[in-house]
Amino acid sequence: SVNPDLASERQTASFSVEKLTAWLDGGAERTQLRRAVVEAIERDPVFSRENQYFQSQNESYEAAVRKAVHLQKKMHEMGWTDDGPEFKYIYRALSGDLAFLLHRIFIRSISVLGSDKQIAKWIPLATQYQLIGSYAQTELGHGTYLQGLETTAVFDITTQEFVLNTPNISAMKWWPGDMGRSATHTVVFAQLYINGKCYGLHPFIVQIRSLQDHSLCPGITAGDIGPKMNFEHIDNGYLMLQNVRVPRENMLSKFCEVQPDGTYVRRGSQKINYFTMTTVRISLISDEVVIPLMKACTIAIRYSVVRRQSKLKPREQEAKILDYQTQQEKLLPQLAAAYAFYFISDYLQELFNRGYREIQRKNFDMLPELHAFSSGFKAMVTQYSTSAVQICLQACGGHGYSLLSGLPSLYTKIFASCIYEGENTILLLQTARFLIKCFMAASTGQSVPPSVTYLAAVTPEKCPAKNKLDFLSPDIYTEAYQHMAARLISSTAAKLQDLIQSGVKKHDAWNQCTVQLAQAAKAHCHYITVKNFAETVEKLETQPGIQKIMKHLCDLFALHGIFSNAGVFLHDGYISGAQMDMVTASYLDLLAVIRKDAVPLVDAFDFTDKTLNSALGSYDGQVYQRLYEWAQKSPTNKQMSPAYERYLKPLLHKTLSKL
Amino acid sequence: SVNPDLASERQTASFSVEKLTAWLDGGAERTQLRRAVVEAIERDPVFSRENQYFQSQNESYEAAVRKAVHLQKKMHEMGWTDDGPEFKYIYRALSGDLAFLLHRIFIRSISVLGSDKQIAKWIPLATQYQLIGSYAQTELGHGTYLQGLETTAVFDITTQEFVLNTPNISAMKWWPGDMGRSATHTVVFAQLYINGKCYGLHPFIVQIRSLQDHSLCPGITAGDIGPKMNFEHIDNGYLMLQNVRVPRENMLSKFCEVQPDGTYVRRGSQKINYFTMTTVRISLISDEVVIPLMKACTIAIRYSVVRRQSKLKPREQEAKILDYQTQQEKLLPQLAAAYAFYFISDYLQELFNRGYREIQRKNFDMLPELHAFSSGFKAMVTQYSTSAVQICLQACGGHGYSLLSGLPSLYTKIFASCIYEGENTILLLQTARFLIKCFMAASTGQSVPPSVTYLAAVTPEKCPAKNKLDFLSPDIYTEAYQHMAARLISSTAAKLQDLIQSGVKKHDAWNQCTVQLAQAAKAHCHYITVKNFAETVEKLETQPGIQKIMKHLCDLFALHGIFSNAGVFLHDGYISGAQMDMVTASYLDLLAVIRKDAVPLVDAFDFTDKTLNSALGSYDGQVYQRLYEWAQKSPTNKQMSPAYERYLKPLLHKTLSKL
Repeated sequence: SVNPDLASERQTASFSVEKLTAWLDGGAERTQLRRAVVEAIERDPVFSRENQYFQSQNESYEAAVRKAVHLQKKMHEMGWTDDGPEFKYIYRALSGDLAFLLHRIFIRSISVLGSDKQIAKWIPLATQYQLIGSYAQTELGHGTYLQGLETTAVFDITTQEFVLNTPNISAMKWWPGDMGRSATHTVVFAQLYINGKCYGLHPFIVQIRSLQDHSLCPGITAGDIGPKMNFEHIDNGYLMLQNVRVPRENMLSKFCEVQPDGTYVRRGSQKINYFTMTTVRISLISDEVVIPLMKACTIAIRYSVVRRQSKLKPREQEAKILDYQTQQEKLLPQLAAAYAFYFISDYLQELFNRGYREIQRKNFDMLPELHAFSSGFKAMVTQYSTSAVQICLQACGGHGYSLLSGLPSLYTKIFASCIYEGENTILLLQTARFLIKCFMAASTGQSVPPSVTYLAAVTPEKCPAKNKLDFLSPDIYTEAYQHMAARLISSTAAKLQDLIQSGVKKHDAWNQCTVQLAQAAKAHCHYITVKNFAETVEKLETQPGIQKIMKHLCDLFALHGIFSNAGVFLHDGYISGAQMDMVTASYLDLLAVIRKDAVPLVDAFDFTDKTLNSALGSYDGQVYQRLYEWAQKSPTNKQMSPAYERYLKPLLHKTLSKL
Repeated sequence: SVNPDLASERQTASFSVEKLTAWLDGGAERTQLRRAVVEAIERDPVFSRENQYFQSQNESYEAAVRKAVHLQKKMHEMGWTDDGPEFKYIYRALSGDLAFLLHRIFIRSISVLGSDKQIAKWIPLATQYQLIGSYAQTELGHGTYLQGLETTAVFDITTQEFVLNTPNISAMKWWPGDMGRSATHTVVFAQLYINGKCYGLHPFIVQIRSLQDHSLCPGITAGDIGPKMNFEHIDNGYLMLQNVRVPRENMLSKFCEVQPDGTYVRRGSQKINYFTMTTVRISLISDEVVIPLMKACTIAIRYSVVRRQSKLKPREQEAKILDYQTQQEKLLPQLAAAYAFYFISDYLQELFNRGYREIQRKNFDMLPELHAFSSGFKAMVTQYSTSAVQICLQACGGHGYSLLSGLPSLYTKIFASCIYEGENTILLLQTARFLIKCFMAASTGQSVPPSVTYLAAVTPEKCPAKNKLDFLSPDIYTEAYQHMAARLISSTAAKLQDLIQSGVKKHDAWNQCTVQLAQAAKAHCHYITVKNFAETVEKLETQPGIQKIMKHLCDLFALHGIFSNAGVFLHDGYISGAQMDMVTASYLDLLAVIRKDAVPLVDAFDFTDKTLNSALGSYDGQVYQRLYEWAQKSPTNKQMSPAYERYLKPLLHKTLSKL
């Protein structure tokens, strides 16, 4: 039975939860398909996550391999394909706790970087799992700066082979997933040398383990890098190469080739390489960031209407903690952000699709914009969402800190998204470089991509809002964000120019502006997110119930951003102190309005209990019962600890001195 | 040998590291004592933390019990006492990974709340470990709001016993440390009933496990609450009571007693109870927050001069990442905060000592101030430091995410400090209540404690700074903080009064102001921290070398706070936009100055490698070698995973269908 404190929240929804779910899914048929996939996965005991929070690293790895292998069978049975619409639902249902994810990258990199002959040879082997692939780029001493990688591949003309080596410890490959214990093959990125001349980074297919008995191949040292904050199910690995020889044909050669006589031939544009990174960054926003954030909101908000603590009014029952303004102010902006980022992820996907169509027509004009957007949004959304999940966790107090709440694992996983696929600060600076370029171009009247024309737009010098209700107008707040982003970019560009004109060298000047450049890039992404949210709400006119609540969330997201970053809006007087008080008043008012729909708004995400895997977040709200039941299953309760006989008993029985 | 990139950082220190260490310790003799204690602990293999990052929850618990039991022996051998100066050094050397910490609270609560007779009976039993104590306050459904606790203790006049019960599942004791598997006794907080009348919360000593064989006593259900983000070494437990009877003498009765005929007698002031909480909150700031923050800074800063990534200048070697402005801006403000909080912890300790002397003279006047300060600073410092450690971790990129860096465990542990010993938001609101009261009193000319007289002080309406150097004047920035804190408190007080005057009920009005009240309380603590840092620097005139670098750190801490919270300083025009640009310029300039002394500044914290237990943070900077060596010890590398025979081999050998 549903806890009455949670049930009552569902009776007063201002909109149809089912309709919102269908809209988020992209139509009722999609919802149906998603539910069917999720059900098929959850009905299968092999995919159970029941013991997830009690597993050692070894056990997590075994479970992930078991699931990945079983999934092959399941997909065949169900008629699901790797590139079908089902895969993202499968991934959602399994919460990504699956091995062989790097095997997919192995396949993708051969498809993109390999010659037709290489594709014909390797892709069938990989898709039929006659080998297990990985992707070895990052080194112990080198990450985002790829040019610094040290692994070498020297062409030996006499044997027509490349000889791969790890010249010193910092060149050891470190972190690649699926490589610590699973992979038989990997794509190794190494500096290519021919006749003593370095030709830069190239990818080589290298076998690392025997297909017969999985023993390491000659010259290979490999293993697992040990415990991490999360991703214990993934065997992130290390790899050292000592005179490992691979045939000339193993260098992926769509864009460049070493001919038998040692001649190096480059063909086509290498720019397209960036496009792969762009794809990965955009797809991780939805799968690895927005979904975990939605889950965290679901758990924290459901718990906050079940948990009662202290009294709001004397002589009444203890209040639901979500009735406290401070709790609303913690959780509801994160809920609004989950929606905002869900929509921006769609926006980026569309931008990407448009770019992809252009690229197929050999038009590469959109590449810089796509690269800048995928970098900046990856950084902004991962950082924001990580802090959002942290707030959700802390808002659940002590019970949030228990792994059984599900929140710690969501948190430690989303935390990693700030680091992998490009370190966030470096990414923001890449976006900033693009913005500064566009600003310079726009100010001299040159054409720039439509998404950044605002940099040259003329906006009023003062926000025209006269009272707190004016700040519920999307025009008012979108313009404020636009003004603020443009100001941060232009003022940093000015500082940069001043420094250079005063004689500071270009690279030093750039370094001295990077704190502000990163801030400006974030401001740009924040502005686009607000603008896109407002436009999304506008398009909802056929569904007034949903439109109304989405409008509230959009307002909340925008005003929360102004309230929390007041300095950048007040700085040049665009928003005055008195107007900031209006922002604050409208912002706090909205909390009480949205609070009424908080539970329906998370119900609409439509996560099953098994997907949430949380003692605090289940649909029925039986929080305390579930915490108690789940704790019983903990290995800490399975038997009396040997610590009793060894230490406690002698201590209590005073035989300690005999120890 | 020391990595030359780290060694070179130590050759240019602007001050004597040894002198700074001695000053931080409170004198060279203290340093000597600390080092002797740490060495004695670290030389003893029983206290080794070598396998810490590879342990299961059960193994962590066993190790903590082993260490706690061995420590008794060790202390006896060494002549160390529980209340001697050594204990905090022991705790530092063991990083708190020790069982029986709640046993200490058990002892303390009996000493404070027990009658002379009870003290005479129980304290010797406890100190000689003839029992193991715990402290059972928090319930599954009840935390910070103590009045809501549901456990009952009904006086049975016929047997002269109390009958304790857990009336429903939310009343189950949940979280108490040492209770899940170790404790034989615990202090249970329960609602006292005599003849059907409730007398509120009282503490009772209850035996929960047999002293003979450790089996649970009749009527007791107890166990471990399962996995958590950290504190796996502690057996946080649950406890249900079914008609558990304890003699009348087991109610701790210093302040109130139930006489044999059922008469309830209250004596003395209960106010002193708050004092225990105050003590705990103040001592946790130094032991559980400042020390972990110092460790995190040590690890991240040492790593940042060893790690090289990208180029600052074309055709040069890759640069140390600490040479990037963005990396400096991540780490150096956290280093400044570590010093700031080290000094505020001293300040609070002195305030507390002064209060304690007054209380011994039966003067309780300082209690409200002490309570407000301990609450507010506990909240502000734990929140700030948690985010600081998070920044340190993220600043180390992927390697920071490895448990071997030591940063994840520091982070997940300090994270808990935001939740335990009072939830931070509730604590801030208690501080706010005190500040609002003082503000009201001060504005009507009544006397208030010296720490809050500033609320009624007249300050200029505009910051007098004329150029960026003016912002390096402690008077200028301290006054800005003072103005800002006073403004936030007075404007929130005004909002509160307006609401009440417009007819909103008092408790509703309070709730509608809580977001701003919490902000005001934080601002107050931030102001006091800056002021105290500046005063600490001033007193250093006999040590000019140390004074100079401390002055830089003080400036950085203050300007970082203004830069990051620009809105509250700009809001009423106290600081103008142009002045904020000066703040920013001075702030960024300081980064480059302090960067030169960054390594000496963390070396001065004087943590041994064993205390840090970090592959990234060791004194010799041999980061990559150590990561590689430590990874070898991981259980994930001990043998071939059974996943190979079970899943990978059949998959690769295509016998999958036979599974």
